[in-house]
Amino acid sequence: MTNIILRGCNGKMGRVVTQLVNEDENVAIVAGIDLSTDGQNTYPVFQSFSQCNIKADVIIDFSSPVNVRDMLDFAIDRGIGIVLCTTGFTKKDLELIEEASRLISILRSANMSMGINLITKLVKEAARVLAVSGFDIEIVEKHHNKKVDAPSGTALALADAINDALNNSYEYVYDRTDIRAPRQKKEIGISAVRGGTIVGEHEIIFAGSDEVIEIKHTAYSKAIFAKGAIQAAKFLHGKPAGMYTMNDVIG
Amino acid sequence: MTNIILRGCNGKMGRVVTQLVNEDENVAIVAGIDLSTDGQNTYPVFQSFSQCNIKADVIIDFSSPVNVRDMLDFAIDRGIGIVLCTTGFTKKDLELIEEASRLISILRSANMSMGINLITKLVKEAARVLAVSGFDIEIVEKHHNKKVDAPSGTALALADAINDALNNSYEYVYDRTDIRAPRQKKEIGISAVRGGTIVGEHEIIFAGSDEVIEIKHTAYSKAIFAKGAIQAAKFLHGKPAGMYTMNDVIG
Amino acid sequence: MTNIILRGCNGKMGRVVTQLVNEDENVAIVAGIDLSTDGQNTYPVFQSFSQCNIKADVIIDFSSPVNVRDMLDFAIDRGIGIVLCTTGFTKKDLELIEEASRLISILRSANMSMGINLITKLVKEAARVLAVSGFDIEIVEKHHNKKVDAPSGTALALADAINDALNNSYEYVYDRTDIRAPRQKKEIGISAVRGGTIVGEHEIIFAGSDEVIEIKHTAYSKAIFAKGAIQAAKFLHGKPAGMYTMNDVIG
Amino acid sequence: MTNIILRGCNGKMGRVVTQLVNEDENVAIVAGIDLSTDGQNTYPVFQSFSQCNIKADVIIDFSSPVNVRDMLDFAIDRGIGIVLCTTGFTKKDLELIEEASRLISILRSANMSMGINLITKLVKEAARVLAVSGFDIEIVEKHHNKKVDAPSGTALALADAINDALNNSYEYVYDRTDIRAPRQKKEIGISAVRGGTIVGEHEIIFAGSDEVIEIKHTAYSKAIFAKGAIQAAKFLHGKPAGMYTMNDVIG
Repeated sequence: MTNIILRGCNGKMGRVVTQLVNEDENVAIVAGIDLSTDGQNTYPVFQSFSQCNIKADVIIDFSSPVNVRDMLDFAIDRGIGIVLCTTGFTKKDLELIEEASRLISILRSANMSMGINLITKLVKEAARVLAVSGFDIEIVEKHHNKKVDAPSGTALALADAINDALNNSYEYVYDRTDIRAPRQKKEIGISAVRGGTIVGEHEIIFAGSDEVIEIKHTAYSKAIFAKGAIQAAKFLHGKPAGMYTMNDVIG
Repeated sequence: MTNIILRGCNGKMGRVVTQLVNEDENVAIVAGIDLSTDGQNTYPVFQSFSQCNIKADVIIDFSSPVNVRDMLDFAIDRGIGIVLCTTGFTKKDLELIEEASRLISILRSANMSMGINLITKLVKEAARVLAVSGFDIEIVEKHHNKKVDAPSGTALALADAINDALNNSYEYVYDRTDIRAPRQKKEIGISAVRGGTIVGEHEIIFAGSDEVIEIKHTAYSKAIFAKGAIQAAKFLHGKPAGMYTMNDVIG
Repeated sequence: MTNIILRGCNGKMGRVVTQLVNEDENVAIVAGIDLSTDGQNTYPVFQSFSQCNIKADVIIDFSSPVNVRDMLDFAIDRGIGIVLCTTGFTKKDLELIEEASRLISILRSANMSMGINLITKLVKEAARVLAVSGFDIEIVEKHHNKKVDAPSGTALALADAINDALNNSYEYVYDRTDIRAPRQKKEIGISAVRGGTIVGEHEIIFAGSDEVIEIKHTAYSKAIFAKGAIQAAKFLHGKPAGMYTMNDVIG
Repeated sequence: MTNIILRGCNGKMGRVVTQLVNEDENVAIVAGIDLSTDGQNTYPVFQSFSQCNIKADVIIDFSSPVNVRDMLDFAIDRGIGIVLCTTGFTKKDLELIEEASRLISILRSANMSMGINLITKLVKEAARVLAVSGFDIEIVEKHHNKKVDAPSGTALALADAINDALNNSYEYVYDRTDIRAPRQKKEIGISAVRGGTIVGEHEIIFAGSDEVIEIKHTAYSKAIFAKGAIQAAKFLHGKPAGMYTMNDVIG
């Protein structure tokens, strides 16, 4: 059994984590931390870590990147790990987190979904084998029509992972309209499709001579990030101090 | 039985037409027109129409856009139709073709494939129904790494067909990287993927609230253009004078 | 403005209809009919039609197939239409519905989604053109691992629609494992994939010589059926008596 | 430079190998072995190995499974490797091959395509991670309408590879029509689509809770098997005695 303190428990993702934990016998939420304490929680909720005296194994953080030091101090004090699902930390915060990881286990990933982390691993492996055989690499991602950034952070992270596997020798191409020339070998084309309420689709295409390999991830809801966070919490429970990522979880 | 004179018979597409006609009992090539007469043809080949005195039902033209007047005069003289698979005509040529169509039947299309012409029809119909229900429309096309233009002519023709069905009120977007804003309603996003030896793939995506419709055409070889030309020739045989397109063939 | 009486308002689909109506200025729910009246409804809820004296334009029925006669009598009495989203009617019920349709407008469809109804129309059209050109037709559907029937009712309805367009001369093949022979021309292969929480995916494949056309519908949630019902209600408002289907809605 | 003796040089696949070798500076065909010696070969062709005295580095065998002993003796005598692309060996032949592999290097694979071998590796890895997270595994393969067996040998080999990674605890399901029950956890559903001239498509689907991962291989021509054989020959050149597979080539 892994006992969790859930920071941001009354936010959108916090509520999804609570619901998924209810369906899983091997984890429990023993306390929540949230500025808003008027959710209908089945566990005690505190406005700050200083008010919380509950014993736990891991913290899951789905809040905003403020008061990081309070959380780190609390975790160091108790010797428990943190799954950081918040983004947008300042450089100073990142240094604090790095420092804390010498004393406690901290897991942090660009994308908390098991599926995205697995395909990141697979495409790196595929890229290493296929690039030398002359396969071209392209990424197509699809998201809902409200998304303001393009390409998605996950598409860029996938491209970076591939590029990293290929000695960072590739350039990204977002638009071929005005190029009027054959494709260059060391390109990764990245296309962003926007429409409707599409939650998130990422497809990596390896196109060779007379054969094509496609690796595709489709998300049906944001619950996959909550699910990944819970899996990460179970993984982190009892681990030695250090920085971890979802890659360590998928093994 | 439809008897064909094949202009450009010793070019790449001409040879494919010849091969497909051999496998079809309802058509025959009775003569070829080609500057190069040293192919291993099973039918007589002439360097120009002026040398040809063979009786036929339809001309299929897979050559280059030169000496158009000679071909038109020959066809008008005999009262036979022409399937024009050549592109790049001058404005003057197009006027001549238009004029000739008052006397003979002429079929001309941006893309000779039955499949592409059918999906063009389907996506127009889908666009009319779905756009009013708030679906967003996007096109993704994939071609080999030697293709110099992007997006493909066929992708643009598909977008134009959709736009035509929607009162030409939509704009095309090729790159969303620098936009940093939600998608506009009256956009058609067009993405071009390039890699390997992909012959040609066109996917039209209608993304709505919680549902997505995709209509996709995949070409496995350029033989589909030859096949379409032969179907067009059968269709044109015996038709009254006028301008036709592949749309008329698919009914 | 279309005023709706929602039968089954406190069931799963009823709640989704209520939510979608709230986001749409052109429709309103003026009353609900449900055995359970303890939902948090913003409109009056009655246990039966006999207790309801609210004026409305259309009834949407997402309940179970009981007390059909009460609903029909109520609608006939007021001269308003009914969108029937319930399935599993008895033969006797179906006769009553048929009879009632001489006096009021009734809309009933195997699948209430706009998207499924549109692709049904498109695949019929495609089948007519492509079957004569020798294309083979196959259907692949994907659903969650809890679904007990295979293939899905919608896949069979799509196959029936295609078969209807082809003079009902095709047979359905569900398993080719023991056949050990080339595919027959007049087959429609239907494959059922089951896994995870997939809401519903239907893909119709037209495979010809060197080209393939695919028409695919992906559902992300059951809200699409509620959305379709609301569109149907708007359509039915003011229509003359008769039996209608979603085909009439998509025009 | 790898010098190759090509057995079966005047067969369909032999001609494709010859053409691809012509486009590659790092390999050369120095001799062919074929019962038919009237091809237009640019290298000497012998009816049997006993007539061939040409020095080479590797043999590629794309013939039929006869006279295996002659080929093995020739290779052992010269100390050169063999890429075996022929299938249908007798048990006796397989023993001879096994024995020979103590003296020379021999490479043999169910499928010679780099792509198929790579995705086999990837799906094993994915299965190990995802099966424990409750993902369901399904395979859909598509082939032309002349193919008599279903599912394809490659689909079964992919299922076997996955099953092998999961302690062979899974059963294969080819048809769910008559089951009328929810999917079992330890199933791999395998669907076979047949139509047109589709060369070969294999898609492995991992369907979890709210996310789906798909790994797909599309073949555009049988040249991919010839290409794989050439890559295998380069790999085998200079390797110590032993049995190898395409897995060793992709590393």
